[in-house]
Amino acid sequence: MVTLGILLSAASGHGEQGRILLALAFVLVGAKLFGALVERVGQPAVLGELLFGVLLGNLALFGGPSLLSLEASETFAILAELGAILLLFEVGLESTPKDMMAVGVPATVVALVGVVAPMALGYGVGRVMLPGESWMAHAFLGAMLAATSVGITARVLQEAKAIRTPSARIILGAAVIDDVLGLVVLAIIAGVIQAAGEGTTLAASGILAIVLKALGFLVGAILVGSYASPRIFRHALALRSTGVVQALALGFCFGLAWLAAKAGLAPIVGAFAAGLVMEDVHFEDHLKRGERPLHENLHALTGLLVPVFFVRMGMLVHVENFVKPGVIGFALLITVAAIIGKWACGLVVPRGISGRTVGLGMMPRGEVGLIFAGIGASLTLAGKPVVSPETYAAAVFMVVVTTMATPPLLLWSLKRDGATAPA
Amino acid sequence: MVTLGILLSAASGHGEQGRILLALAFVLVGAKLFGALVERVGQPAVLGELLFGVLLGNLALFGGPSLLSLEASETFAILAELGAILLLFEVGLESTPKDMMAVGVPATVVALVGVVAPMALGYGVGRVMLPGESWMAHAFLGAMLAATSVGITARVLQEAKAIRTPSARIILGAAVIDDVLGLVVLAIIAGVIQAAGEGTTLAASGILAIVLKALGFLVGAILVGSYASPRIFRHALALRSTGVVQALALGFCFGLAWLAAKAGLAPIVGAFAAGLVMEDVHFEDHLKRGERPLHENLHALTGLLVPVFFVRMGMLVHVENFVKPGVIGFALLITVAAIIGKWACGLVVPRGISGRTVGLGMMPRGEVGLIFAGIGASLTLAGKPVVSPETYAAAVFMVVVTTMATPPLLLWSLKRDGATAPA
Repeated sequence: MVTLGILLSAASGHGEQGRILLALAFVLVGAKLFGALVERVGQPAVLGELLFGVLLGNLALFGGPSLLSLEASETFAILAELGAILLLFEVGLESTPKDMMAVGVPATVVALVGVVAPMALGYGVGRVMLPGESWMAHAFLGAMLAATSVGITARVLQEAKAIRTPSARIILGAAVIDDVLGLVVLAIIAGVIQAAGEGTTLAASGILAIVLKALGFLVGAILVGSYASPRIFRHALALRSTGVVQALALGFCFGLAWLAAKAGLAPIVGAFAAGLVMEDVHFEDHLKRGERPLHENLHALTGLLVPVFFVRMGMLVHVENFVKPGVIGFALLITVAAIIGKWACGLVVPRGISGRTVGLGMMPRGEVGLIFAGIGASLTLAGKPVVSPETYAAAVFMVVVTTMATPPLLLWSLKRDGATAPA
Repeated sequence: MVTLGILLSAASGHGEQGRILLALAFVLVGAKLFGALVERVGQPAVLGELLFGVLLGNLALFGGPSLLSLEASETFAILAELGAILLLFEVGLESTPKDMMAVGVPATVVALVGVVAPMALGYGVGRVMLPGESWMAHAFLGAMLAATSVGITARVLQEAKAIRTPSARIILGAAVIDDVLGLVVLAIIAGVIQAAGEGTTLAASGILAIVLKALGFLVGAILVGSYASPRIFRHALALRSTGVVQALALGFCFGLAWLAAKAGLAPIVGAFAAGLVMEDVHFEDHLKRGERPLHENLHALTGLLVPVFFVRMGMLVHVENFVKPGVIGFALLITVAAIIGKWACGLVVPRGISGRTVGLGMMPRGEVGLIFAGIGASLTLAGKPVVSPETYAAAVFMVVVTTMATPPLLLWSLKRDGATAPA
């Protein structure tokens, strides 16, 4: 009779499915509870979700069960990523391409500083602390510090109802440009290292192709999207079915997220672009016919999936990895470099914009930093990984500190700017 | 430079993630389009979603790409299952345990007839058409015809706004009881076959344990849930955070779905039970505080995930498998047996209830029939699989016909009953 249970669960996929159902139940309730608790002490709910994730991911330290199999679950990872995609789509909906163009120049300057300054500092830390390694390893360390992850910042801006402020637009624009720059930097450095390993030099054409693909996606998505979105919704009026706006909007969001990934960018960049080009006026006639407003529907979806993203991000923090004597000093040093590097963004903002808020908004590295570190760990130079286990642990520490510190600091800064909506 | 793309996609899981994003974009837009088209000709939207799925799953027949990797994707399957779970939760919310108790006796009678009649007919078809096989293979064929899949019927009842009619309640109650009975029948027959394979006899204690676990879940979920739900929501008023109702309700739904799977039942049975015990009055105070009504939030979630379920169900139909000369006659015969078997349910309904509607509502076998057939294909008797490839193909045909024919027939029957809401 034992076999029957196995047969049944294999046939219907109950093993993984059961894990996901249980995880969703726990994550939803736990994230809400922790979010509400930190809100009591004036902190953004997202910090509570991250902390709940850290707790779940380190249960084994307190004698609890290990959730490594959940962490490794591809389905759980994709549900989390869908949460991040829907969050950035929601954030993008609150701006138009015109709004973003208006901050185009300062956002580009902020993005450039936010890549160059941390890279230079990271390179310097590498030269001083890892003198035995090649310059390529130092440059990779710098690239790791340059990555930006906009999810945390977007969520805090949203919770504080500050998405439509000029500083928020500069941060969001700079984060999109940063994603392109980060991709280019990573492509160049990884290309140089690979070429060195093969005894050849790097082909410039390969890099150019990457840059063109990424820029082509961004420009194309915004131009074609702005043209197509109102026309698609107008034609869709012919479908006299309910839920047309939601289906089309989400289809557009997921489609652009997929295209962004194809172009080598983060899917959230595509989702943000989809949100930018879509405007309420495009589906006004649908709303008149009794369709529910898109932002209400989206809010239900993000309510389910966004906590999955932040709880999972917290789960990936394994406390035991970076509280080692040999790691902690180095980790503190690159963390300081990472913070100062992004803080420098605040020095180049236009008059009237809060440099403090922009610098803090650019600070979190999130999972992008971890992806960069993971790529470094898989690249080798003279038989050694470019990113050693110690450097990897230090990078994780840097990601954790910049990610966890951002919600309270950014909320505090927004309040000082007077940019939050009255409670 | 080629390797970098691979590294990047491996590090961030873009391969599978990209597939899911693209699939979601296509499924959402395609399902809406096909749904709207069939609605034009007076059919329920779910039929359009199924047909769109059949088209996607058989693209290769028209020289298109094969989507087998999407069909095999665990993540896609789980997203689909989440859709089914949320659908049954939504349906359950429209009734209370008291409503279901009121139809307890007729629902049980309907469920018993709906299991016994198809089993007897299937056994008979097996004896006539497969005289060389053992009685155990014939009994398994009967068990395959007894499975009920309530998703299609629930969706049609919902589209027709007929969930709260007495016939709908009898169908839903009978479907839940059927799930328990089907599990028991499958456990007994599979146990007998396994024991025969090992040269032993079946232990009755094993079957008793299965029955007790399933009944224990149902009774426990409804009793404990009815007691706990109002208290949980009352205490949750202390959380002054938005989205509490949605988080708790979904947590409860996923938690019970998980428990149902643990008890050997379908997760959708747990989700339905969760919907039954939860009532609007439990979170009235939350709504007064400005929370969005649960059914509005749920509707956004089901709008995204339910089409995934029905499109995927359509995709699993591989037309080439059952249009073979040797299969089609046998397939037609067991399909007729399956239809007559469930039609018999309509003969035992109380006065004033439409037997035609109940019989049609019990008809679809959906994925449950496929799961049963899959288990049979993996069991062996005297070195041969209990369900041969031909029988499996015939079972798929039976599932397709009963599933595809239900939406139009059931909608027609509801209209004749006068049970649909005015358009």
